[in-house]
Amino acid sequence: MKYGIAIFPSKTVQDQANALRKRYDPRYSLIPPHITLKYPFETDPEKIDEVTQELRKVAGSVDPFYIHINKVSTFEPITNTIYLKVEPIEQLKMLNEQLQQGIFENNQDHSFVPHITIAQDLVHDEFRDIVGRLKMEGFEIKDYIDRFQLLYELENGSWTVYETFLLGKE
Amino acid sequence: MKYGIAIFPSKTVQDQANALRKRYDPRYSLIPPHITLKYPFETDPEKIDEVTQELRKVAGSVDPFYIHINKVSTFEPITNTIYLKVEPIEQLKMLNEQLQQGIFENNQDHSFVPHITIAQDLVHDEFRDIVGRLKMEGFEIKDYIDRFQLLYELENGSWTVYETFLLGKE
Repeated sequence: MKYGIAIFPSKTVQDQANALRKRYDPRYSLIPPHITLKYPFETDPEKIDEVTQELRKVAGSVDPFYIHINKVSTFEPITNTIYLKVEPIEQLKMLNEQLQQGIFENNQDHSFVPHITIAQDLVHDEFRDIVGRLKMEGFEIKDYIDRFQLLYELENGSWTVYETFLLGKE
Repeated sequence: MKYGIAIFPSKTVQDQANALRKRYDPRYSLIPPHITLKYPFETDPEKIDEVTQELRKVAGSVDPFYIHINKVSTFEPITNTIYLKVEPIEQLKMLNEQLQQGIFENNQDHSFVPHITIAQDLVHDEFRDIVGRLKMEGFEIKDYIDRFQLLYELENGSWTVYETFLLGKE
């Protein structure tokens, strides 16, 4: 089964991201706005207890923290994904790092760039237009993060939460 | 903020339900297939810690259990919702009951009918046609339930998981 690990920002930030995703992200309805901590990985559902036990430890090792978002960026020329750039503070990097080692396969090709995707799969002209407009608009978001989620993918490509892990507990 | 409490059945059952929902439920993409334990209720987000604390107690009071689904039913003449009927075993009723008392407002108008919605808002002829076909098909599902989820509604009508509660723990 395919699992992923992500942070959902607050409702306010999700609503703000969705206002853009609704128009610019064809995968909008498959998962709420999120910061990916670990990209999709395969695990036998029978071994999921081992995974959740480890995730409780990881969550417990980092206290809740604030994230900051102050710009829009893109992954070009690799992809034309547009995202809200989350400042890569120590706590985010620690969480991400711990999810690429020990019982977790390192399945991250590039360095960790915490972000909330707001647009993808756009045609070139639309991409340029939207990037330009969003960069002008500017963003200034501060958000409190105290949990992350383990999710699994359904046949239709959507994601269901399996379990929530609270930061700094246990 | 609007919250709700629900059980997600296993991936297998969600996939099976989604194959139908995709065609017959216009609200398909707003939330994964689920059994509602408590209908949407308003709570001040600042008081959510009190709610989660209570939900941990409720979850701890009931051990994991199996659900059985062996028929399709409808809420007509009230609505033309079609659903997979979940046998109302004691554990489900206990969970539902505890979520209508104490700090939880009783916001349930009818008696508790545990179910997984697979179709709604259909026009009359389509409704009759689909009910007939699904009743002939028959269903025989057994599924293991060991958790429930507290969710909140976003501006666009979709639901994000806030926290997972494991049955029979603590």
